[in-house]
Amino acid sequence: MSPVQLYDTTLRDGTQREGISLSVVDKLHIAQKLDELGIHFIEGGWPGSNPKDVEFFEKAKQLKLANSVLVAFGSTRRPQSKADKDANLIALAGAGVKVATIVGKSSERQVSQVLETTLDENLSMIADSIGYLKGRGLTVFFDAEHFFDGFKANAGYAQRVLEIAASTGADCLVLCDTNGGTLPSEITAAVRAAREVADVPLGIHAHNDSELAVANTLAAVGAGVSQVQGTINGYGERCGNANLCSIIPALKLKMGVDCVSDEQLAKLTEVAHYVSEVANLIPDSFLPYVGFSAFGHKAGLHVSGLAKWVNSYQHIDPSQIGNKARVLVSELSGKKNILYKAKELGLDLPPQGKEAQRLLEQVKLLESQGFQYDNAEASFELLLHRAKPDYKPPFELVDFMVVVEKRRRPPARKSLEEMLSEAVVKVRVGGEVMHTAAEGNGPVNALDQALRRALLQFYPSLAQVKLVDYKVRILEESVGTGSSVRVLIESSDGVNEWRTVGSSTNIIEASWLALVDSLEYWLLKQKNNR
Amino acid sequence: MSPVQLYDTTLRDGTQREGISLSVVDKLHIAQKLDELGIHFIEGGWPGSNPKDVEFFEKAKQLKLANSVLVAFGSTRRPQSKADKDANLIALAGAGVKVATIVGKSSERQVSQVLETTLDENLSMIADSIGYLKGRGLTVFFDAEHFFDGFKANAGYAQRVLEIAASTGADCLVLCDTNGGTLPSEITAAVRAAREVADVPLGIHAHNDSELAVANTLAAVGAGVSQVQGTINGYGERCGNANLCSIIPALKLKMGVDCVSDEQLAKLTEVAHYVSEVANLIPDSFLPYVGFSAFGHKAGLHVSGLAKWVNSYQHIDPSQIGNKARVLVSELSGKKNILYKAKELGLDLPPQGKEAQRLLEQVKLLESQGFQYDNAEASFELLLHRAKPDYKPPFELVDFMVVVEKRRRPPARKSLEEMLSEAVVKVRVGGEVMHTAAEGNGPVNALDQALRRALLQFYPSLAQVKLVDYKVRILEESVGTGSSVRVLIESSDGVNEWRTVGSSTNIIEASWLALVDSLEYWLLKQKNNR
Repeated sequence: MSPVQLYDTTLRDGTQREGISLSVVDKLHIAQKLDELGIHFIEGGWPGSNPKDVEFFEKAKQLKLANSVLVAFGSTRRPQSKADKDANLIALAGAGVKVATIVGKSSERQVSQVLETTLDENLSMIADSIGYLKGRGLTVFFDAEHFFDGFKANAGYAQRVLEIAASTGADCLVLCDTNGGTLPSEITAAVRAAREVADVPLGIHAHNDSELAVANTLAAVGAGVSQVQGTINGYGERCGNANLCSIIPALKLKMGVDCVSDEQLAKLTEVAHYVSEVANLIPDSFLPYVGFSAFGHKAGLHVSGLAKWVNSYQHIDPSQIGNKARVLVSELSGKKNILYKAKELGLDLPPQGKEAQRLLEQVKLLESQGFQYDNAEASFELLLHRAKPDYKPPFELVDFMVVVEKRRRPPARKSLEEMLSEAVVKVRVGGEVMHTAAEGNGPVNALDQALRRALLQFYPSLAQVKLVDYKVRILEESVGTGSSVRVLIESSDGVNEWRTVGSSTNIIEASWLALVDSLEYWLLKQKNNR
Repeated sequence: MSPVQLYDTTLRDGTQREGISLSVVDKLHIAQKLDELGIHFIEGGWPGSNPKDVEFFEKAKQLKLANSVLVAFGSTRRPQSKADKDANLIALAGAGVKVATIVGKSSERQVSQVLETTLDENLSMIADSIGYLKGRGLTVFFDAEHFFDGFKANAGYAQRVLEIAASTGADCLVLCDTNGGTLPSEITAAVRAAREVADVPLGIHAHNDSELAVANTLAAVGAGVSQVQGTINGYGERCGNANLCSIIPALKLKMGVDCVSDEQLAKLTEVAHYVSEVANLIPDSFLPYVGFSAFGHKAGLHVSGLAKWVNSYQHIDPSQIGNKARVLVSELSGKKNILYKAKELGLDLPPQGKEAQRLLEQVKLLESQGFQYDNAEASFELLLHRAKPDYKPPFELVDFMVVVEKRRRPPARKSLEEMLSEAVVKVRVGGEVMHTAAEGNGPVNALDQALRRALLQFYPSLAQVKLVDYKVRILEESVGTGSSVRVLIESSDGVNEWRTVGSSTNIIEASWLALVDSLEYWLLKQKNNR
């Protein structure tokens, strides 16, 4: 099949997702990363609607992009006005980019009822706006909003819109399933009808409201579109945009469509996680291809299968997209998972001995208390170590105390400065007992500081260990603030990352347990590497 | 199109999802709920592999199901053995159900390399096992594992497997995309090829590894299958199973396929949330149809559009599936969102006044400090109220202190009893200052208890307010335990639910802010309802 050009709109449509907010610096970082992935077009924002986006395009001039072209987004001129007096179009032309995308209406009902103008005026708006931007030397992509809904209700008008856009010089007509309600078979039929009236390249812009955005995009490629719009991780308004992280490998590995190189494809997982980190969203573990669980095997039968044939229960080799397979440990696991995992960790566990069975029982008991190991492999590894009779922990807790205080001084007002968090910790390292105290931004931070103050005297290299994510999950939803909580901590030493778990009705204790596991795990690794 | 029968495997394949674990009681509750939704077949578990599932089928005999038939799952007999000596098949026959599903291999390579037997022996295993169960009066569905991969590599053998299963009496042949790697066009072709060799009803069992499970299921229905397997919310191993919550409305509303009634369809969102609650998983806000964000509108342009035509930016009327539209407030919002929201809340905000603009500025400032309102509408509503010059809060904090202590007594061991959490709170209600203290399971619970102890004297009805979910999100990932955190609290009075937010570097303070908002919001609602 012909090659396809990838058009990323994470920085514009992606930021319509509930709970997302990107600074200008965030957007610049992401643009740089998308360039590494080999995305052809990066839509940076809407300079006519948002001063932050004007700043982005200004600063983006300093970006060194090897593969990507920056695109500015805007809409057609307002009804009953002039294109060359339209602030939005003027901002587009002044954004310093070579490519502009403008959105216009292609659904009759949207024109009359939402835009509240005539069908002819809408056509003039499209023609004038494209003409204005072409006249300023720009490449112009036309987003035909609500194209598929419009085509279903009034095919003639939707096609007329495409004809007008093509005849006034649009370089690509992007067919939008704005509300995300179209079925793949309808996409195929409408793309074919679009090809009949317009002899310019077509694109597809799908939304995931029916959980069909990826399928709809692939159907459109099958019907001949050559530009694919989407976002990293499928971020976008409501249920999201078409997910480029699923589209790119499907095109390249399953449909043989040229879009990125093998080396670029192998960065896919990294890019997906990078974008979620910058966007400050927890990566979705269950995302196809790039998710942490995408190649995680839990069923005992599947684990024994993959010991015989590595791809027996996975559809591709995960290394092609930079992900990897994992074996999970849980109460559903057989002894085989424990053995497989222990072997993976380089621990000697006799296959016929009782150790594996005993560990499985222990995992089940701890899981019933709220611990969960399938997402906290470092804590699981410590469990294996601690089961050995000769295991010596690098440090042991004696006791701790935390005080959090908020005192209101006149004039009464909320302010962070009023909060005091203080921790006192007693730990034993070797034969010595260390008694330390520290303040912190919060109680867990104060504990962390006090514990580190004690440990750094013995293990100075511990300074490089950072906590990079901290999650709290309430376990029994009916008992309110008295519920058990599970704390998952992700730590990093700048090279490796690991996850640990703690559980208790007390959030401080649960955090403490996960924190101790995190540091103990790292110290153990260091010792074993020496 | 012909009607389709729905087959739910949440209780079996769904529990293979990473991080899920269901008790027998959980499974019974979910089965009852699936019956309300009108699911035709409920796969309850694998009695031959798991004592918990034996117990489930025993207890399930007491369930009163109006619409659903319970199904037990198992596999074909082991190689080189007898069906009537196979513990797994005997358990299936003894589970007390009328329908059994057995899985067998239909991929040549899976037979030789994973099952490690001959192609002929595999055919005998299938024939013997179906024959055994049919001989005991059961309806038998045959899951053809890896059918699509097997068909691609050796179509003849995959078809031969179907022929054998059909000729020995299988009542439905379920074609499985076990690894989830198949494209919709390949599904259509393989289903057609299956219809050529077997004149029994066909089913489809898809996995979501390529983000195509829903599309693949719909493609199979288009090609003539009459049974659809999937799970609620798409739970399942790796990236999940085909999501019935997206398949059911697509079949009924978009393809005109009869499967559930209008009344049952309107329960879809409730069932989806119920299952995630019982499974103790946070509902995915971004799920199509049933997600909290599925009909949430953030873009200012879209909000002004839906004020003119309610479905201008949504593909269906959300009430058809029991969901509803929402307007979000965020820094991307225009003043229009604030006005729309205020109107929705019944608050009088002059459209031309400066209040809306000032509120927008305040939202932006608070968001920059870590607050987020698009998921905490109760806190946003309080923001609107607090902006009024005559607003009188139902209570005011003077100060608080929390102590958390862990003391290790010989013999040294971890135990929850050693933890002490105590809070002292001073609040002003009307002219009175209340000074209370309480212990709790953890510091937030202790604060909650002490605060309630003070407030209940004035507002005894507050006793019915419970916290139902509590989430903590770390905000700046690079600064470890010293990062800002955002706490989101979901509360319920048994009738209504509401969400509040707090943000601080101190998790206790962030929790406190969200907690105070929760109680203040409810007290305000009570006052306004009087």
